[in-house]
Amino acid sequence: MDFQQDPRALLRARTPGGLARGPVDVDPDATPGYPGGKAEGEATLEARAERLTQLQELLYANGVAGSVDAAGHGRSLLLVVQAMDTAGKGGIMRHVVGAMDPQGVEDAAFKAPTDEERSHHFLWRIRPHVPPAGFVGVWDRSHYEDVLIHRVRGLTPVPEIEQRYAEIREFEQELVQRGTRVLKVMLHLSKDEQQDRLAERLDRPDKFWKYHPSDVDERVYWDEYMEAYRIAIAETDTDQTPWYIVPANRKWYSRIAVQELVISALEGLDLEWPPAGFDIGAEKRRLAAS
Amino acid sequence: MDFQQDPRALLRARTPGGLARGPVDVDPDATPGYPGGKAEGEATLEARAERLTQLQELLYANGVAGSVDAAGHGRSLLLVVQAMDTAGKGGIMRHVVGAMDPQGVEDAAFKAPTDEERSHHFLWRIRPHVPPAGFVGVWDRSHYEDVLIHRVRGLTPVPEIEQRYAEIREFEQELVQRGTRVLKVMLHLSKDEQQDRLAERLDRPDKFWKYHPSDVDERVYWDEYMEAYRIAIAETDTDQTPWYIVPANRKWYSRIAVQELVISALEGLDLEWPPAGFDIGAEKRRLAAS
Repeated sequence: MDFQQDPRALLRARTPGGLARGPVDVDPDATPGYPGGKAEGEATLEARAERLTQLQELLYANGVAGSVDAAGHGRSLLLVVQAMDTAGKGGIMRHVVGAMDPQGVEDAAFKAPTDEERSHHFLWRIRPHVPPAGFVGVWDRSHYEDVLIHRVRGLTPVPEIEQRYAEIREFEQELVQRGTRVLKVMLHLSKDEQQDRLAERLDRPDKFWKYHPSDVDERVYWDEYMEAYRIAIAETDTDQTPWYIVPANRKWYSRIAVQELVISALEGLDLEWPPAGFDIGAEKRRLAAS
Repeated sequence: MDFQQDPRALLRARTPGGLARGPVDVDPDATPGYPGGKAEGEATLEARAERLTQLQELLYANGVAGSVDAAGHGRSLLLVVQAMDTAGKGGIMRHVVGAMDPQGVEDAAFKAPTDEERSHHFLWRIRPHVPPAGFVGVWDRSHYEDVLIHRVRGLTPVPEIEQRYAEIREFEQELVQRGTRVLKVMLHLSKDEQQDRLAERLDRPDKFWKYHPSDVDERVYWDEYMEAYRIAIAETDTDQTPWYIVPANRKWYSRIAVQELVISALEGLDLEWPPAGFDIGAEKRRLAAS
């Protein structure tokens, strides 16, 4: 079963009219554009994985061949995944990202910064992870932490946070100009669903390691986080660096939605298989003789 | 369908009697220990992926929890994959490694060294990729290139190559002592099968990018490569840092064989789910109130 409508149109944070939606405007239980349930969704995830890997191989092939866009830059894709704890980032990594060839994927997980990282500009630890030509970069959390938790917990004064939005816009625009497609996703779950998922971690010995008392500390600021997301999204969503708010109470839905967003982004690169960089006939003869 | 015999025993380069086998002693068409064919093999790959991911999550959980072995070291696993071109390294990465959670896997592909890398000791570019506690490191080529292509093409004088075997033994022993399990695999295909696979790359526009004229240049030295592998394996196989020679003319077989070797290695770590590092009852109450 396929999506009946393009998830890009349904999930984009900014409406065609230009209004920026925040997470509170999105029902975390919904399954926009997809008429099926869990069983169909899981089948779709598997069925579409082939298309995803094919497109990713095409991107990688172009990277290896050194092909460039009109401006002379190699192409790459950056997927930024932001979410409250337990929203399913890990599942996206395993089930969507994991289907791609790991050789062409560069994952980066941005945890609480080290002292050294803290002593630098907030983009300092981010820049080395920009995907090179041919690669899909996947960021589990990102530079957005510096305007989310920093805003909510007052780690940085508000005027400086405001300045950071501009710096983020500039940074991402720079990526776009250098050939990187930028795709930003917020997995949006409900506060109640998070409580259920955290409770499960406290009930199962094989899940204890995933639980941190700090998860509850942050949960207390739920509404403030939603507001910080709303502002960050409104400030940094552009047509070239779009944000998508993906309902995440149903894990199967968020996975196929993100999968489809990545497929669309890769299709949008309009790539072709690079031509042979050698004389095919001569190589056939050389090979046959070897 | 399961393996009928432990692939570790069947594929280990060194026999129980202590003799080191080289690739020429192994039939690349064989499917040791596995009674089924391609269809069964593909089903086995999928069925066993769950066990593999479970064990990898267990390793990752122990890394997150900071648990250590008797000597006080965190545990990790290193899988080294060496092979002639077209032997199927990419397929191992996609179909075996790709099933694991990418967040807990660190891939490294070692291509021809850069000028800077060449100016350092041959292990200089390798060391930063040793998997940290909790991680599975997967190396697509490795420090063994420095005793394989270097021996075959005379890039390094033989006495220095001989010295490198000792340095490799010492390096890998050091990894073992610091808690890293080391597993080395040579994917072994026949020279004829390589010719067929290279010919396919020259016949399909979507495969051109995988073909390099240098593949034929190296192919000319096939017998010298087999001998360089034999020596390198004999010099560096130890019970703690074993080599396995995996028949690779049938891709489905090499994949389930490597999958099973990784599963056994992870099982050998004998890990348990780490205990909660917090007061479970107190956290349940705090969560319920949040």
